[in-house]
Formats: sequence, C-alpha cells, structure tokens
Amino acid sequence: MSFTRFDRYVERNAQSFIERLQALCRMPSVAARGTGMRNVAEAVEQMMQRAGGGTRLFRLGSGYPIIYAEFGAGAHCFLVYGHYDVQPIGSLSEWTSGPFAAQIIGAKLYARGAANSKGDLVARLAAIEAYQKSFGKLPFCLRYIVEGEDALGSPSLYQFAAEYAELLRAHGAIWDDGYIDANGRLVISLGFKGIAFVELRAHGARTDIHSKWGGIVPNPAWRLVHALATLFSPAGEITVDGYMDHVAPLDEEDLRLLASVELDEEGLKREFRIERWARGLAGPDLVRQLVFGPTCTICGLQTGHTEAGPRTALPGTAVARVDFRLVPNLTPELAISLLREHLDRRGFDDIEISVLARAPVAKSSARSLVARAAAESAAEVYGSDPIIYPLDPASGPVGALCGAVQPPTPVVSFGIGYEGSNPHGPDENIRLEDFIRGIKYFGRVIHQLGRLAQEASAEKESEAAVELQHHRALPMKGATHED
Amino acid sequence: MSFTRFDRYVERNAQSFIERLQALCRMPSVAARGTGMRNVAEAVEQMMQRAGGGTRLFRLGSGYPIIYAEFGAGAHCFLVYGHYDVQPIGSLSEWTSGPFAAQIIGAKLYARGAANSKGDLVARLAAIEAYQKSFGKLPFCLRYIVEGEDALGSPSLYQFAAEYAELLRAHGAIWDDGYIDANGRLVISLGFKGIAFVELRAHGARTDIHSKWGGIVPNPAWRLVHALATLFSPAGEITVDGYMDHVAPLDEEDLRLLASVELDEEGLKREFRIERWARGLAGPDLVRQLVFGPTCTICGLQTGHTEAGPRTALPGTAVARVDFRLVPNLTPELAISLLREHLDRRGFDDIEISVLARAPVAKSSARSLVARAAAESAAEVYGSDPIIYPLDPASGPVGALCGAVQPPTPVVSFGIGYEGSNPHGPDENIRLEDFIRGIKYFGRVIHQLGRLAQEASAEKESEAAVELQHHRALPMKGATHED
Repeated sequence: MSFTRFDRYVERNAQSFIERLQALCRMPSVAARGTGMRNVAEAVEQMMQRAGGGTRLFRLGSGYPIIYAEFGAGAHCFLVYGHYDVQPIGSLSEWTSGPFAAQIIGAKLYARGAANSKGDLVARLAAIEAYQKSFGKLPFCLRYIVEGEDALGSPSLYQFAAEYAELLRAHGAIWDDGYIDANGRLVISLGFKGIAFVELRAHGARTDIHSKWGGIVPNPAWRLVHALATLFSPAGEITVDGYMDHVAPLDEEDLRLLASVELDEEGLKREFRIERWARGLAGPDLVRQLVFGPTCTICGLQTGHTEAGPRTALPGTAVARVDFRLVPNLTPELAISLLREHLDRRGFDDIEISVLARAPVAKSSARSLVARAAAESAAEVYGSDPIIYPLDPASGPVGALCGAVQPPTPVVSFGIGYEGSNPHGPDENIRLEDFIRGIKYFGRVIHQLGRLAQEASAEKESEAAVELQHHRALPMKGATHED
Repeated sequence: MSFTRFDRYVERNAQSFIERLQALCRMPSVAARGTGMRNVAEAVEQMMQRAGGGTRLFRLGSGYPIIYAEFGAGAHCFLVYGHYDVQPIGSLSEWTSGPFAAQIIGAKLYARGAANSKGDLVARLAAIEAYQKSFGKLPFCLRYIVEGEDALGSPSLYQFAAEYAELLRAHGAIWDDGYIDANGRLVISLGFKGIAFVELRAHGARTDIHSKWGGIVPNPAWRLVHALATLFSPAGEITVDGYMDHVAPLDEEDLRLLASVELDEEGLKREFRIERWARGLAGPDLVRQLVFGPTCTICGLQTGHTEAGPRTALPGTAVARVDFRLVPNLTPELAISLLREHLDRRGFDDIEISVLARAPVAKSSARSLVARAAAESAAEVYGSDPIIYPLDPASGPVGALCGAVQPPTPVVSFGIGYEGSNPHGPDENIRLEDFIRGIKYFGRVIHQLGRLAQEASAEKESEAAVELQHHRALPMKGATHED
C-alpha cells in the first residue's frame, strides 16, 4: 500500500495539527494542582469525536475524567493509551518561556506536556484522521483510552480497569513513552519498569525550633539522613536487605535486544552536562544498567529552611521522596515490604513510609503483533531501523490496562519526543519535525497492525478468536455521560 | 532606692508600652526579604529620641541602617544591643494568626519578632523613659546600638565596629537573648556560643531530569546524604575529623555555674512534644550538653520536589544547611577548615561549602559589673534568684561589639521571652506580663549598674579610667544622618 496520499494529507494539514497541539498545551492540566482538568478532558473528547471516534467520558469517584474512544472495527482489537495531565512545572524561573505559552522557537514547541504527552495524543489522532481520509475505516477496533492522572499514579485508571475489564481485552497495546535518539533513530520499548514511589518522614519537635537546642533535641533531618544512607551505598548499589536477590537473570531475547541498543553516551553527557556516568559505567554495562538495573533514586528532600536568608532552625519534620524503579521479579509490594523490614531491623521504625505511586513491571515479547508492527514501520519514516529496548527504564500504569486480563496484553511504546525534551524538568519541548514524523509513523503502524492481524486471523481461523465483548449499555459517539 | 515611683509609672503607662510594641511588630522587617527595613529603622530611631536619646543612623554600604543612641553620662559606659530585623516567617499556614497582625490572644502577644527581639527593645526604652521620669538622668553613659541584620550574620555591625571602635569602648554590654523559665525564673547568660553556619551544595545533571535515568546519572541528593552522614553519627556525636579535640575543658567557675542551672526537662519535653532527649541524656549531662556541647545541626535540606503530586525527578542540585554552634576553643574559621578537610579526605571535594554566617564564642566572668548587676536585680522583680548560664547555647554578633576592643568587653544577656516563645518558628509570642516585668527589671539593672560603677570608681580612683572617647564630629539628637 502506498502512503503517498496519506503523507500528502499530513503535509497539507501540518500547520493545523501543530495549532491543535498548541491549543491543547495552552490549557494547563497539572494533575497535582487540579485546575482546568475538566476543560482539558472535554477538549480531548471533542478531538476524539472530530477524528471520527465514538467516545465516552468516565469519571470514577472524585478522580479526573477518563476518555474512552473507539475507532474502526474488526476481529482484532488494539488499545492505545494516552494522558492529558502534565507534570508540575517546577521552578518557573528555570523556564525560558511560559510553560503554558506553547511558543515555537527555532522549529521547537516549548510547553509543559508537549513531549509528555500531549504531542503524542494529537499526533496519533491526526494519524487516525489522515488514515481514514486516505484509506477509509480502520481495519480493526482501536480503543483509545486517555487518563488525567498519570502524574498521580493513575488511581482512576486502575479503578476503571477493574470495573470495565471487558473494554480492555485486546491483542496488544500501544503506549506513549519513547523518543528519537541523537542519531535520529526511533526508540521503541517492549514494556516498562515498575515503580514504588514512597515518602519517608521523620519527626522531631512539634515544629521548627531555635537551633540552639540542636545538642539535645532529636533532629529529624539527621535521623532521615542516617536512615537514607543505609539504603544506597556511596558506590551506587541498592543496599536494602535482600533487595538484589529478587532481580531476575536476563534471558536470551533480553540479551539479544540489549546488544542492539545504542546509547549516545557523549551526546547524553553533553545534554545532562555531566562528566561521567554513575559508578564509572560505560558501554554495554551502562546500557544494561539503564535498561535492566533496578534504581533507588532520591527525588526530593525537604526539611527546615533553605530559602534566602540564613535561618538557623532545628526542623520539626524531615521528608524524603524515594523512587524505586522495578525490574523482573521485583513487585511494588515486595519493594515496600523489604524497605520497611530493612528500616525496622536498624531501629528506624519511627520513620513513616507512605506510598505515593506504584505500578508493576510490564514486559512483552518481540514477537507480539504490536512489537512487530512498531518495529517494521519505523525505517520508512525515520530512515533507519529502530532501537528496541527490551524494557523502558521509565514506568507507567501499564498494569492497569494490560494486566486487567490474563495473560497480560502485550504492550509496545514509542513517542515523538527526543533526548532534549526534558519531560520532567523545565523547558520541556519537542521538535516540530518529530511531531509530523510521528503522525506519518503512526499511520503506518495502523496499517501494519491491520495486515498482521489479517495474517494472524487467516492462520488461526480454526482457533478460538479472542472474545471482544462490548459493554452492554455503552452509549457512544457525541453523547457524553459520566459515571 | 525605692522603685515605687518607677513601678507606678510603668503600670500607668503599661497599655501605651504594649501599643508601641504592637505598632513595631506590625511593621514587617524580615531582613532576608528586605522590604520595609528603612521604615522600621526610622521608627526605632524616633522611639530612641522620644526616650531622650541622642541618636544617629549609620548606613554602611548597601546594608540596613544601624541606630546608635546615647543616654545619660558618667565616667562609666555600658553598651546595650538590640536588633529590629526579624526571622523569616517560615510556612504561613503554621501560624494561628498573621505573623504581623500582632494580635493579643489570652494575655499573649503573637507576632514575628515579639520575642526576638522587638519586645526587649521596646521594654528597655520604656525602662529608660520610666527611669528618667522617676530618678532623672542615667548615672552613666548608655550606648544603645540597634542593628537590622541579626538574621543575616550582621555584616554591617562588623563593619560599623571596625570603623567606629571608639564608640564601643565600654565597661560591659547587655545583650537581648534570654527568657523566663518554666518556674518563672529569669535566665541570664554570661556569653554566647559562636556559630559557623554553612551551606553544602552537590551538583548532578544541569537540571532536574526524568528519574528513569536514576541508575546511570549521578544523583546529587545521594551524594549529599552520604557526605552528611560522615559528619555526625547516628549516636549523636560530631564526627568531623579532629573537631572534638579542640573543645576546651571546663574551669571551676563553669562547673559551679553549671551545677546551679536547672532545666525543666519535663516541661520542655511537653513544649517540644518530644518523648526523650537526644542521646538519652538527662540531668546534669543534659544541662552540660546544652550549655557546653558543640552542635552540628542540619537546619535545612532541599532537593527535587516534595510538594503536592508525586513528581519523580532526578534532581540536578541538592542543598543542605548545617549550623555548628561553637564552644571554647572552636572558632568559625577552624570549624570551616576542619569541615573542608574532612570532606576532601573522603573524596567529597566536589561538595561546595559557602559560609552563610559566622560569629566567635563570647564568654564573660560572673564577677563583671554587668553580670553582677543583672544577677542582683532579678529577685526583686521575678521573686527568685536567676538561673545563670555560663554560656548561652544561642549565638549572636557579640564579637562585633565586644570583641572590637581588647580585652573584650564583658557581656551579659537576658530577655523577656519564655520557653514557649518559639522565636525561630511559627506563632512566636510573648506573655504581656513578662514584657511589663522586663521593663521593671531593666530599670533596676540600670540602677544597680550605676551603683556598682560608683563603687568601682571610688575603689579605683587612682587607676587609669577607661578612656571614653566620642566620635569627633558626631552630630546627635534629632539630626538624622547616614554614612
């Protein structure tokens, strides 16, 4: 099938697609703040409908709405995941232009959420639109699920999956994390690390007091520092008792894929402005640590006063946020219980642990339909074969969508960002060229999925087809309801 | 001499004195913010003039003005120190009423600065006014010096002392730190610990990045935690190499005074809401540690994100503020160089140290005129002998005023706060009764100083009197000039 007509449609409408993305980025949707979330959800639903989808808005409890849309039809079904919420902006002063100004500077669009992941959402809907204009109806059922709590640990999505599991039965899922590497190659991953994100809290006096009492009143900051120091060695190893014993050895496919992963070590070092990697890593060891290494990262520390003016107070409370990225066979529950036991064993039973977010590991085979479609479609758009990570070092609520059914739905992930996108820091941005290529690529993935699905159906005609049940009384298209 | 007339004047004007204090507390003067400092300085100067002082405003460089005032005359001269700046307010949400509302609730005045130390300033000026109304001119020269940079490490005061050392030649100095203990006894101290207040800073990537990089990009938060953990043991001991070797042994007067110090252990534990003291201390060991123990206190930690919303970022920078309170024979310079060497020796030479504030130790004899006057005047007002600390566990720019001449001017300190004043935390407050008693007490201290000075002059008539030079061209009283 020739994509000439499709590509021409994309190019003719490129400006309009970019403007749609700018409009969406100008609607702030920081889940942690909670303002404007409903407006953004409704805007996303309208975009879905404009692209020809039947939609429904789900609101679970007091959570932010989940938008569910269906496109196309067929014996096969694929899920696409997106989120309309964005990360907190951090320190405003570190941004070159306003995080919600969505300014285009030098062929890049700067906005909180441009890379993570409003850009993917708008590009994929543009691809669906272009596909339909060029080839007609999608050759399978595509279920697009967009949540608003990615930065909050996706509580509504987990609840949605539990209540509407039949909507999630599918032959594969496509996630929205990924980027173009420094050599212009698409980075695809076959799953995600899990995560256990916890807050540790130590208490001293009821409030901050004069630091002249420092010699005799217990200091929660020292307490926390001493507890933290036992979790991770100066050499860079996780030293939580028994933790590393649970890390699974790599299998042959892991090792084969790892060997093909290229990391632009020098480019990344320049990007991050660091002189060396942690633990003196380099080459294959560095790649293996990035992809299959479990992590234990202090993401935040706060106690007392560090603003302008030397205020000498003995703090009343000290807080640390620690993020454990999980690899097979570590689960969030296991990580948290090992941490609790480790601290208790050392007398740190006064340190409170609260769980801020958790998600299990998700890992798919390179032979799954989604993995093949993603891998086989890349060269035509990006000019070279993709880099395939057996596991994305990031995490996501994959378990909510793909783990709601057994066996888990295979997941593949890619995205339109690049290494300089800085999706969790200031000046988040995408290159407009990547955005347009993302549209073209997604159109080809749709096509390839349709072809592979047809082949699979022909091969397995006699086998029982995956049951694709629709929710009994699901009012769709234009009619907006909330649960 | 009977104080009936003096006390009657104080009681008749109590309401007006309280209103003066409220007015001063309602003028925010957070040195770290810098707004309104000039207005407050001018208000203080006017209060000095209204109390009969000849005044002069000094501005050194870009610093906040220093108010210098002279009251009375005589062969003897005493310095009184105060500051009109206040600590940062910290978290506004922890305050019951506005920090600058100066509300009176249940016979307490709540305001940032009420205890530290606008209350002392207003009380002492009220005492000078009442003394003059009751007895006439002060029987010695009282030089009142009020700065606006107490919370900033007093850079202007040090510069002032260097340029106008002749104004600081005196027979003793009275500081404004101190409080009434849980048994209603006045706590007087014969000097202050020194301080070296430093910021430690570790660097990683150029900005916060996605924490999926946690396994391979150096994390400055871990770096800082590991460096900090080497400075202070979990058992509560300072473990900076060689540090404790410099702590001087106590002499006989130290031990005698220490033995008389009573600490309301249970009351303080209730006040702080702690279950036990650090290191399991109690009784005389607790007192000795408070008074003569050098401290190493984490006053602040900041890195990454700890606000609402679980943002998992790998931080680019991590900062700790550490406050070393110094005892004889530790100097700020020694403490800082030992810290630097200690970190370097362990490979932490990438950790930057910046000095936020420093002050040397000041320690006076119980036989000095100011110490005797303070001690002998307490019982009549507070109903019992004072508690005398050989060293105040707090610090101040004593070296600036008292160390400008050799031998250093003896210093004594007391104040109108109480144990619940929380001068560095939220809900700073004083009891109005303590404010009024502070006025009555300061009147008696003036009287006693006059009497002791007269005795000393008679005894030492043949000895050379301390030379009390005035600045040659110092325009005083009403005329406000700035340097």
